Amino acid sequence: MAIRYPNGRKFTGTESSQKQAPKKELTYSNRGMTLEEDLNETNLFYLQRKKAVIHKKPTPVQIVQVDYPKRSAAVIKEAYFKQASTTDYNGVYRGRYLDFEAKETKNKKSFPLQNFHTHQIEHMKQVLAQDGITFVILRFSLTDEVYLLDGKDLIHFYDQKENARKSIRKADIEKLGFLIKIGYQPRIDYLKVIDSVYF
Amino acid sequence: MAIRYPNGRKFTGTESSQKQAPKKELTYSNRGMTLEEDLNETNLFYLQRKKAVIHKKPTPVQIVQVDYPKRSAAVIKEAYFKQASTTDYNGVYRGRYLDFEAKETKNKKSFPLQNFHTHQIEHMKQVLAQDGITFVILRFSLTDEVYLLDGKDLIHFYDQKENARKSIRKADIEKLGFLIKIGYQPRIDYLKVIDSVYF
Repeated sequence: MAIRYPNGRKFTGTESSQKQAPKKELTYSNRGMTLEEDLNETNLFYLQRKKAVIHKKPTPVQIVQVDYPKRSAAVIKEAYFKQASTTDYNGVYRGRYLDFEAKETKNKKSFPLQNFHTHQIEHMKQVLAQDGITFVILRFSLTDEVYLLDGKDLIHFYDQKENARKSIRKADIEKLGFLIKIGYQPRIDYLKVIDSVYF
Repeated sequence: MAIRYPNGRKFTGTESSQKQAPKKELTYSNRGMTLEEDLNETNLFYLQRKKAVIHKKPTPVQIVQVDYPKRSAAVIKEAYFKQASTTDYNGVYRGRYLDFEAKETKNKKSFPLQNFHTHQIEHMKQVLAQDGITFVILRFSLTDEVYLLDGKDLIHFYDQKENARKSIRKADIEKLGFLIKIGYQPRIDYLKVIDSVYF
């Protein structure tokens, strides 16, 4: 049986052992990292280089019961996941407010709109009304292609959902979105796209 | 025994019954609301009036064990509180990034600096470097006076902490900060101060 991390990622050895023995022709695709892990590393890179201050919001949890054992930390004994009312990532870059959601699909030719919730779309509209920058980062995980799609475009497609549209065609994402080159440091250099699109 | 909400606020009847029977001379001070509750209502007011998009970040929790019972929602069975790496509130207003922390004290003449953590001060410095707006909202709960103090001023006092400074004198807050009038809707109209100080 394969050993897996809680996030479903396969355990493939310690990080240091991977570092000590890299493959000769190292590609950065399909390394088994989730999009979230890649973005967390990217944001940490930006933070350390003083390029931007972007954080992922904590998972919202409804806490019901907490125990306070003597001489040790409080333990949450009963809690439930709540649905987020905003997108997952936000922060500040060159004076502008940045706000985005990141999702991946195993589909090859389309991105399912069910990855986004109505309240997230609503939030993106609110951010646009305040002149914030909002977008989504979409990853086609089988080919490890990552696109940045502007919030207005996502909203456009989402609002057609009522008319039986269930997904965005990859061809449309290629046309309207911006391919983000996958690298080593940072892994997903989305600020490069932000620079050229929003500034 | 007084019945209390999980946040420690006293249960004093249903909200609707309170609305139906307001006191004749209604003051908005010392209503037993926490600063967090007041700010959540204020931010909701701003959101609904399309004035600004400001949210409190969820409490960060390290989830250790989750049960997935049949036919019902996942239950978190073991989790721990983590220390936040940023301030609690952020969002966008008139194109600018807003970022703040809110704290209250029962002291009369000073505000203890232990209310703030080094990583929060560090975060505020990072936000300033990206030209974001950062500040703290300080409440003296006994007199229900609420001040907005610019992040640079807080940083100035905090960085003197090593030199035995344990708190900010209220006189300094009165001099450097901005008194926010407590109202009904919104309760803590801090955007009025933001308009005059940062725009």
